[in-house]
Amino acid sequence: MSLTFDYTSTFEDIVGKGNGIKHSMLDKLNDIFQSTRADLLERNAKGDLPFWDLPFNNELISDIEEYASNKKNRFKNFVLFGIGGSALGPTALHGALNHLQHNLLPNDKRSGCCYFCPDNVDPDLISSVFDVIDPNETLFNVITKSGGTSETVGQFLVILDLLKHSIGENWRDHLVVTTDPHKGFMREFCTIEGVKSFDIDPGVGGRFTVLTPVGLLPAKMTGIDIRSLCKGAGEMKEYCFRETFVNNPAAMLAAIFYLAQTKLYRPIHVVFAYSNRLYPIGDWFRQLWAESLGKRYSINGKEVFTGPTPVKAIGATDQHSQVQLYIEGPADKIFLILGSKTFKSEITIPDLELKHDTVAYLQDTELSTLLNYERFATAYALTKAGRPNMTIEMDEINPVNIGALLYLLEAATLYAGGFYNVNPLDQPGVEAGKQATYALMGKPGYGKLRQEMNDFKGIGRNLIEIP
Amino acid sequence: MSLTFDYTSTFEDIVGKGNGIKHSMLDKLNDIFQSTRADLLERNAKGDLPFWDLPFNNELISDIEEYASNKKNRFKNFVLFGIGGSALGPTALHGALNHLQHNLLPNDKRSGCCYFCPDNVDPDLISSVFDVIDPNETLFNVITKSGGTSETVGQFLVILDLLKHSIGENWRDHLVVTTDPHKGFMREFCTIEGVKSFDIDPGVGGRFTVLTPVGLLPAKMTGIDIRSLCKGAGEMKEYCFRETFVNNPAAMLAAIFYLAQTKLYRPIHVVFAYSNRLYPIGDWFRQLWAESLGKRYSINGKEVFTGPTPVKAIGATDQHSQVQLYIEGPADKIFLILGSKTFKSEITIPDLELKHDTVAYLQDTELSTLLNYERFATAYALTKAGRPNMTIEMDEINPVNIGALLYLLEAATLYAGGFYNVNPLDQPGVEAGKQATYALMGKPGYGKLRQEMNDFKGIGRNLIEIP
Repeated sequence: MSLTFDYTSTFEDIVGKGNGIKHSMLDKLNDIFQSTRADLLERNAKGDLPFWDLPFNNELISDIEEYASNKKNRFKNFVLFGIGGSALGPTALHGALNHLQHNLLPNDKRSGCCYFCPDNVDPDLISSVFDVIDPNETLFNVITKSGGTSETVGQFLVILDLLKHSIGENWRDHLVVTTDPHKGFMREFCTIEGVKSFDIDPGVGGRFTVLTPVGLLPAKMTGIDIRSLCKGAGEMKEYCFRETFVNNPAAMLAAIFYLAQTKLYRPIHVVFAYSNRLYPIGDWFRQLWAESLGKRYSINGKEVFTGPTPVKAIGATDQHSQVQLYIEGPADKIFLILGSKTFKSEITIPDLELKHDTVAYLQDTELSTLLNYERFATAYALTKAGRPNMTIEMDEINPVNIGALLYLLEAATLYAGGFYNVNPLDQPGVEAGKQATYALMGKPGYGKLRQEMNDFKGIGRNLIEIP
Repeated sequence: MSLTFDYTSTFEDIVGKGNGIKHSMLDKLNDIFQSTRADLLERNAKGDLPFWDLPFNNELISDIEEYASNKKNRFKNFVLFGIGGSALGPTALHGALNHLQHNLLPNDKRSGCCYFCPDNVDPDLISSVFDVIDPNETLFNVITKSGGTSETVGQFLVILDLLKHSIGENWRDHLVVTTDPHKGFMREFCTIEGVKSFDIDPGVGGRFTVLTPVGLLPAKMTGIDIRSLCKGAGEMKEYCFRETFVNNPAAMLAAIFYLAQTKLYRPIHVVFAYSNRLYPIGDWFRQLWAESLGKRYSINGKEVFTGPTPVKAIGATDQHSQVQLYIEGPADKIFLILGSKTFKSEITIPDLELKHDTVAYLQDTELSTLLNYERFATAYALTKAGRPNMTIEMDEINPVNIGALLYLLEAATLYAGGFYNVNPLDQPGVEAGKQATYALMGKPGYGKLRQEMNDFKGIGRNLIEIP
């Protein structure tokens, strides 16, 4: 493992008064850090927060390895049906650690099954996947922690019907379910039908499940070394429990983000990945950060409407899209830059002995050098413009470092819950939309809401119609 | 064409005091609307803003159709090297109008060439494309408006070398360049070497080029009906110049976004696409909105540090990731929901006669119905939570409607420039980062900056190292 967290450019002596934090602000947070850490340690000891010890579940890793060794060569395709925390973790791992054109590689060059994760109920998306897979060559993984997520269960009914029609008798061989060990519709289904399943520990929130079978099974089936992934995550644990605040990377990351929002008015937290492999981690982080910290009520029940807005960006690409705003727009952002010293591949811009000013300086340069120079240059330009920024740099993008990074960000989320004084493990705000959907779908018990929604549709509307 | 823009839920009588705009706020903007419109009309008449008439360039459309008819069957792959405005438009068109697994379809099922747009200098990305294409079957399109974008020129040198080595004599047949008609390195190269090229009108800013050869050539080569695309855009023109403010969809969209930021403190503008096809339009819009409006100086030269932060989201997926924050977090967002009444494909959740509460209501429902119910439900929940939102709904996702939508958003950007009182056509803020890159690359004339950057690297740093 080798990661460096550099937060130099978040201090006001570097980015300017009002733009950066002061050491005294960190000092004032030390008590909350200590009490949060003590609380997390205590809950960890009680087994109350099983998330902390997911990397050490060697039995599970072996189970998944064994399952995958039987299935990986039998199936060309692995299709994951899940949404939110049941999709973003596996997709982040796939993006970071598999080939960037994984599904287009020939079978003998691919590290494992083709990976599809159509995490929506858009019929164009679902049917596009059906157009390019043969069910006979496909393993479907249905992932829902509760066992009743409507999008996922809807997808499940579609593929159950498809499998029974296209495979017949042996349809069970093409299905594996990842869900609660005891409760919910999918668990009942697996028990009754004898379908293979993996458990999600009920104590692990959906957005913290990347190191459960939710993330590990798809990873292993597509060719990722999950033992190294868990090793990196596991090694990170002690750093995330370090007692000295300024040496604890999870707590410091959380504290700086928190101070940026509350003391510097920087509510927009940009994760700026200088790597196409690291970019999908931004989507995973978006859920982690937004759902955990975006809360109406504090722990004490006070109405606070708090939480940062996570935004993902990619370099160098977004230098040609977002950096104008980042440098010259409102001073409402803080940046977490993700980078890697080295890349798996190397391409050198050849020296064609062109003399033109536009190209001369580019010749005989490695693309990785150009990309990392652009990363340093953007960080420097942000700093000079008074825009606080910090960087996590790894030595290479490999399973150990990715495991460590994801674990670090999860731990940071728990510390951030302490600083923001909210419960980072619930998501009460998504209920209203779910109920409104139930009402429209005609689910029993939602008649009144349905009427209200119909009334709302019927009011005089402000419309511009373009026929 | 059939689009409806519904902005009912942006008014304070619907979303609550302080959460919505007032009619009087719109009334007060009428003068700016009228003067902006007059200015845009005048510049359009003078030929000063060629963007407005791009959809009517039938000669160009025919040229591209002819070129593509010769090349489309000859090449399996179309690889675009460009970044920012030279990539986001073509990629948005590809995402919206081609099959969602386009590159995985067999040749006889695909509407045109496979599409690759590796818009970064990440060596893992570039080499991943090289791993799955055969240069003999590939047409490379190098797109840079200035002719000197460092990332694109770097990529160009790599493929020039590759083509000369792998194809030999006939390397020119595999290359087409889209650039300025007269100036820049790529133009000089095409002239000297006799390489096929298309022009980008110098009067059209990079982020407004989707209806120039930048967007049209890749679209045609991959199988999109560019004549319908331009037809839809062209039909939108008159709506965008409508004289009555409340009937002008471009001006109203811009005005509501502007008022949300300046009067309601909603600086975060979320484009929430309820369709995987419409989602990549969010990336294209991000550039359009951020680079055009994120400005340090107003038109009058006053320091303002203004501009909204565009964020893209996708439904129903992000209901399981961002909606918690959108409903319960700070009241700092306004939402533009994009949706479609119908989809190209249809999938029905089968009725398997399951009685379980979790699934009973889902059975015998079309996925498109579920998705659109979720869209209405989310809009309703946002409204009830006092979060202003508006919706653009099309009858179907087809080239006419997509052309109309993109044109509408571009026109809205020009009106927004008027309301924000900034120049929507420049991007001065990206210079600092470019210069810092030049300094690191050792480009002549940047020695002092290089020294400054080295000094900055050498200061005492705040680091946490995780070895």
